[in-house]
Parts: sequence; C-alpha cells; structure tokens
Amino acid sequence: MFERLGLIGCGLMGGSFALALKRAGLVRSVAGFSPSASTRQRALQLGVIDEAAASPAVAATGADLVLVAVPVGAIESTLAAIAEQVTASTLVMDVGSTKSDVVAAARRAMLAQLSSFVPAHPVAGKELSGIDHADAGLYAGRQVVLTPTEVTGDAQLVRARALWAALGCKVVTMTPQAHDAAFAAVSHLPHLVAFALMNAIGAQARGDEFLALAGPGFRDFTRIAASEPGMWCDILLGNREQVLLQSQQLQRALQELEQLIAHADAEALRAQIANASAARAQWRMGGQQD
Amino acid sequence: MFERLGLIGCGLMGGSFALALKRAGLVRSVAGFSPSASTRQRALQLGVIDEAAASPAVAATGADLVLVAVPVGAIESTLAAIAEQVTASTLVMDVGSTKSDVVAAARRAMLAQLSSFVPAHPVAGKELSGIDHADAGLYAGRQVVLTPTEVTGDAQLVRARALWAALGCKVVTMTPQAHDAAFAAVSHLPHLVAFALMNAIGAQARGDEFLALAGPGFRDFTRIAASEPGMWCDILLGNREQVLLQSQQLQRALQELEQLIAHADAEALRAQIANASAARAQWRMGGQQD
Repeated sequence: MFERLGLIGCGLMGGSFALALKRAGLVRSVAGFSPSASTRQRALQLGVIDEAAASPAVAATGADLVLVAVPVGAIESTLAAIAEQVTASTLVMDVGSTKSDVVAAARRAMLAQLSSFVPAHPVAGKELSGIDHADAGLYAGRQVVLTPTEVTGDAQLVRARALWAALGCKVVTMTPQAHDAAFAAVSHLPHLVAFALMNAIGAQARGDEFLALAGPGFRDFTRIAASEPGMWCDILLGNREQVLLQSQQLQRALQELEQLIAHADAEALRAQIANASAARAQWRMGGQQD
Repeated sequence: MFERLGLIGCGLMGGSFALALKRAGLVRSVAGFSPSASTRQRALQLGVIDEAAASPAVAATGADLVLVAVPVGAIESTLAAIAEQVTASTLVMDVGSTKSDVVAAARRAMLAQLSSFVPAHPVAGKELSGIDHADAGLYAGRQVVLTPTEVTGDAQLVRARALWAALGCKVVTMTPQAHDAAFAAVSHLPHLVAFALMNAIGAQARGDEFLALAGPGFRDFTRIAASEPGMWCDILLGNREQVLLQSQQLQRALQELEQLIAHADAEALRAQIANASAARAQWRMGGQQD
C-alpha cells in the first residue's frame, strides 16, 4: 500500500506503528529518524526501521507516508523541518494526544502542504515508553480518532482511514475541539489526578509507609502516573483549557461526595456510589468487550 | 489446624477464605451463614461450605475459628449475635477495610469475649463481588493487616498470624488508627475519586460520547469505580475523618498542578509530573514485584 514510511520519532508509538505496518505487509521500507543516535541504532537492530535518517527532512524525502511520532510540543518544529519534502500526494500524520494545538501548529508550519496532513490520535499506549517496548500489536482493536481540517485532502483522509482500519483499528472522525473536550475528561484528567495522588501521598510524613501497604486497587488506579513526564507536560499544557474545566467538574463531584460523607448521609452516598458503579460496570472500551 | 470454621457472610471475601483454608488443608469442616438462602445453597454447591447454618450463632457454635466476612456496617450486630458462642479459645476475625470503627464495634458487641477477636484486613479483592467469584487464590501473595486491641489474646494473635502466613500472605501488625490513615490514602480515596470521576463525566451533556472514546488508561483508572456500593458506603463513612483529610490533601496537590497549567509553567509542571512518575515507577505492591 505504501512504498516508503518516513518515521520521525522512534519511540513506543512510532516504533509500534512501523512494526504493525510491516507485519501487515503495508509498507516496503521504513526510513527512521530519532534525535538519539543510540535509539536509531536500536531501531535498526530491532527491525523497526530499515534505514537510519540523519534528520527529519531526510526521513521524509521520497516518503509517501510520514508519521510524526514526537511529543506534542515538538510537532510544530518537526512539521516545519519536513514541509519542503511533503508533496500533494504525501500522507502525513501525527499520533498526538491533543488535537487543537496540533492543528494550529500544522497551520503555522505547513502552509501550502496542510492538505497532506491528517491529524491522528490512536487511543493506545503503555506507561512504558521507548523503542524497546514497541509492539506490532499495540494498535490492534483500539480506536483512532482523526481530526481533519477544512483543507485536508479527501485522498489523504481516505488513505488514512484505510491504513488504520487495516491495522485493526476502529476509526472515528471528529473536530479537534470535540476530540480535546472528550480526552480531557477520559484521559488527561485521570493522568493529572494520578500524578496529584502520588505527589499528595509522597508529601506526607508517613507516605512511604502508606505506599508499602497499597494493594491491587491502587496499582491499577495509579498505573498511568508512571507515564513519561515530558509527554504529559506537553499534553496538559496543550489542552489546558479543557483539562482545567474537567478538573473543576471532578472536584465538584468529589466535594458533593465529601458533603454526604461529612453529614453521614448514607442513603444519598450509597445512591451516588451506585450510580458511579453502574456506569463503570456498563462501560466497554471502544464499545467492545473489555 | 482448625476443626471447624464458622463462616458468617458467604461473599467474595468469605468464600475465598473458606476455599483457601480447604485447599491448604487447614480446616476440617465449614459451617456457613448467609442471610440469602440462595447464597447458602450456592456456597454448598460450590463446596465453599459443608453445612448451611440457619443463623450467625449457629454457624459459630462449636467453631474454633470464626470469620465475620460481612460489610463493615453489619459487623457490630454480627459480633453481638455470636458473642455467646465465642469462648476463650476461639479465634474470631473480620475482613473489614476499616479498623477503628470495627474495633469500636467489637468493644460494644463482644465485652468479655473481646480477647478472642483479632481485627484483620486482607488487602485483596476484586471489583466483582459474590460467592460466584470466590477464589482459593485470592489472598495468596497479598498483605494482611492485623490490628489487635490491648486485650487481644496472645494465643489468638499467634494463630491468626500463622493462619494468614499459611495462606501465602505477608502479615503486618499495626494500630487501627495507623491502618485507617494509610488505607484512607491508598485505597479509600482512590475509590472515592473513581466514583466522583464516573459521576462527573456522566453528568455532562456529552458524557456518553466521551466514555465511548475512553481507552486503556481510563479502564484501569476507573476499574475500582465498579465496586459494590453498599460496602463502599460503609467504608467511606466508617473512616470518614481520614478519608476527608486525604481528599483535602489530594485536592491541594491537584490545585498545585492546576496553577502550573494555568500559568503554563512547563518547567515546574514537568518537575512535578516527573516526581509522581518516578514514585509510581519505583513502587512495588507489598514491597514485591508487581
């Protein structure tokens, strides 16, 4: 389907994408760039990339598919660095967890080439980052949200849909704004809260003792707190308005429960918990079996 | 090791305890009571209990080991109902997630028999409740916190330690107050927040659309929100002072992060996230491999 993938960023997301494309027989060769020479070397060793490129522009040269798999804060400079290599038939995508800021960055960086860009957010990941955790199956069964701009080429959008579908993803299309509102609630806020909980416990005199007693509920609740700091700093700042809005909503719901606890209103507290419990029990990831 | 277990409450925790004791060859027979006739029947069918008892007192009669595996809010009445059957050599334990309130309830309910009671909290569970999810391996590798009172018999404490150790648990002893402070931070608060998040999202006009997009991070973060409402209502009310205290600490930490986001202070935000991420990456459940 594609002759040459220009992979910019050889981390968990980018590496897994290259491996998935190769496994599906959807790409002939992969040229990869990472700012780290040892990562480029490792990506070659692992068979994630076929050629190590010396710069983003070199990776993009001659590529009919370019994946910009760098932290959200580095997308603008990366797109600017490859803009000259992008043609009207190239398909360029990112994998960022925020979309309004990425679209704004692409507008500034790509100008005439903006029609080649399909902003993408595959809803997949691990709390482990880096090429060594790349996994050809990372995206299978996951959702991918595409947030095309008003100038995104029809051909690019069609190819992007087909590509992700071929990797076993459910493809959803929406505006960048709708994307960011939703993911503030179901992803960015949970991360923010998990970070806050680790810090709140760590700041207490007996914090270490508390942590030593924690069990499986804590393990799962805080798993995402181990995520990569640079990436999550970018995401929380990139979607700051919606994140702060959702954080306020959560605190209101929390304070409502606190009031019921403080007043020992068992009946109302139980009803509120039952509401939450039923909602979570009914939820299925991507509308599928969990 | 034990002749007869009197099991009061045949749910996930109690059923798993009986199965684990049987598998380890630590009990000759199990008499079980549940307020629900169909649960008693199911417990017999599943081999969790050998005899169905018509009341808590009947289950405790002649038992050298009694496990009170009922919601925290029902412990006092249960202990009062069996107090006459408890002798100086019986070992009585609960499995409640809060301990100060359980100890206070035991003082009121057991009087002279209080020396037979070893308050226990096995740090294990699932978001699924009920006898059908009982599992002989539920407690293996988990921690159990014992919070003896000043009158708890030495013989009972020694037998309780040996019993849980024989089930593969790491046994920790502390005061009820220290227990409740720790579990408010690492268990009760995460549950409270998970309930609040489900309610906060559910209350929004586009909440269902948001939930349909949620991925694996959300799945793990909110798993505990599906927990049993009655049980968690009891726990949050039973440990209300510490829960409210920890909720305040969390909100302070959250508001600190919000300030950094609002001021786009990337450096400080990244440092705070890095602190949380390192703490979580280093954490191991029960000091063991996760």
